[in-house]
Amino acid sequence: MIIALAGGVGGARLAHGLARALPPGELTIAVNTGDDFTHLGLHISPDPDTVLYTISELADPERGWGLKDETFACMEALGRLGGENWFALGDKDLATHIERTRRLATGETLSTITADFAQRLGIQHTIIPMSDDPIRTIVHTDQGALPFQDYFVRLHCAPAVKSLEFTGADAAKPSPALLAAMQSEKLKGIIICPSNPFLSIDPILAVPGIRSWLQGRTVPCIAVSPLIGGKAVKGPAGKIMAELKLDTTPRAIAQHYHGIIDGLMIDHADANDSFGECLITNTLMRDIADRERLAREALSYIERLR
Amino acid sequence: MIIALAGGVGGARLAHGLARALPPGELTIAVNTGDDFTHLGLHISPDPDTVLYTISELADPERGWGLKDETFACMEALGRLGGENWFALGDKDLATHIERTRRLATGETLSTITADFAQRLGIQHTIIPMSDDPIRTIVHTDQGALPFQDYFVRLHCAPAVKSLEFTGADAAKPSPALLAAMQSEKLKGIIICPSNPFLSIDPILAVPGIRSWLQGRTVPCIAVSPLIGGKAVKGPAGKIMAELKLDTTPRAIAQHYHGIIDGLMIDHADANDSFGECLITNTLMRDIADRERLAREALSYIERLR
Repeated sequence: MIIALAGGVGGARLAHGLARALPPGELTIAVNTGDDFTHLGLHISPDPDTVLYTISELADPERGWGLKDETFACMEALGRLGGENWFALGDKDLATHIERTRRLATGETLSTITADFAQRLGIQHTIIPMSDDPIRTIVHTDQGALPFQDYFVRLHCAPAVKSLEFTGADAAKPSPALLAAMQSEKLKGIIICPSNPFLSIDPILAVPGIRSWLQGRTVPCIAVSPLIGGKAVKGPAGKIMAELKLDTTPRAIAQHYHGIIDGLMIDHADANDSFGECLITNTLMRDIADRERLAREALSYIERLR
Repeated sequence: MIIALAGGVGGARLAHGLARALPPGELTIAVNTGDDFTHLGLHISPDPDTVLYTISELADPERGWGLKDETFACMEALGRLGGENWFALGDKDLATHIERTRRLATGETLSTITADFAQRLGIQHTIIPMSDDPIRTIVHTDQGALPFQDYFVRLHCAPAVKSLEFTGADAAKPSPALLAAMQSEKLKGIIICPSNPFLSIDPILAVPGIRSWLQGRTVPCIAVSPLIGGKAVKGPAGKIMAELKLDTTPRAIAQHYHGIIDGLMIDHADANDSFGECLITNTLMRDIADRERLAREALSYIERLR
């Protein structure tokens, strides 16, 4: 059994490859909920939804968020009523938020709901939030402290990042299914997907017990670098690393994951910056075949490190 | 200034005519909220929405509920996630419920929100709920006590009605704008729209202070019969009257409103059953011109009764 840690688009794509490469039930994907927020009275979980939509092959292949063949009739009507429509929620996507919010209000946990959604969308692996406790990413910037979606969507990542804070993390526990997977005798390895290390993976590592478990693990843990040729494929990872005075190199990624990974998969474009335990391959995932090929290489790499 | 009491489709159509016939600001429409319910965590106000949509000419002209050019992508996606989709909420319509629910949660009243929605949809009259306090219609039937939407939508009005109950009415107050209109020196008359007397108008009359105000009024009050040829144009009024052992005649309607109306407008088709103070006209509203013509006749009738 494999545990994958994932955030948004890049992470979801590798998670999709892993879901295809592994037999049903042998993958547990723990997803970042630091980006979760309440908007229009709805509980929105962007990263878990991206993972659900990507693995069920319902995600829009171009846009990087939301569902394919999506419409936005509700958002237009909301604008007419004077409602906030800066965060574009598609009509089909809204069903996820409405149903999640309704079920949370009845006392169900985010884990149960997310795992059930996965099953209903035909996914035969476990997809769960990193924690059922509320953790919210606050981006400290040159324009002050910003809730994640204000930074990410409303301000298009324009403010310069000074530091990141994960409020609520100190009091959080890993979600029950993640905890069970962490303690499972069947666990063969851990894969940190090519998600933003600062915005998507660090909130997972901030949940008490997860970093220390990784530091003391007895199975291999590898990461896939989110950089290709010193740049993020998508999103602000490169920009943030520069703002935090880090080199946008595999070395800086490995340094960031120091003590918790045994190896890093990097792209041929970054081969000049390779070091110590690296696997150089093609990390760009253009299509589903790429996702599955990279996933199989990651699984082989883990086998080799055992 | 005129006060109109209205429920769903038929009432909304006459209210639309009145809104066209009267100068801006001279109409207050108090709408039934006995059909309101919480569904999918959203506060849904079917009758106020029907009035808003009809007067803003956004209503679907055929279906009798919801918006024209509506889509149902959210409902389909909700079904895929195992959510309840027996109550069809259109994608555009959802914006109304989401925004209303969000604003109610911030402490705004249903009155303020409804009046603001009306303004944003370009309506230059006051549209308000009968009360800001929760009143819920319970239909006592041969299949037991049913919340209104279970009776109306889920069971398609099939159970036989024994009696109706308006829970919460005893503790309710008329909404502030309705109270102000009731006490206004400018009030010239009251029109009970051709809505279902039992399901749509009785909940309004059940709000303490409204029936007694009508009984003691100093301006004329007229009603427009919802029956044409002994049948309701739409909805279960005829069926319910039969189940309550009432004749489906203008006389039975007048008897129901005994003490609170000075006159009843009835259709030519019911001329044989006319009695006392009746105005016989064409009450069927096929198009907007019909609505305005009937409204002008109602206003003239009030003038004549003054």
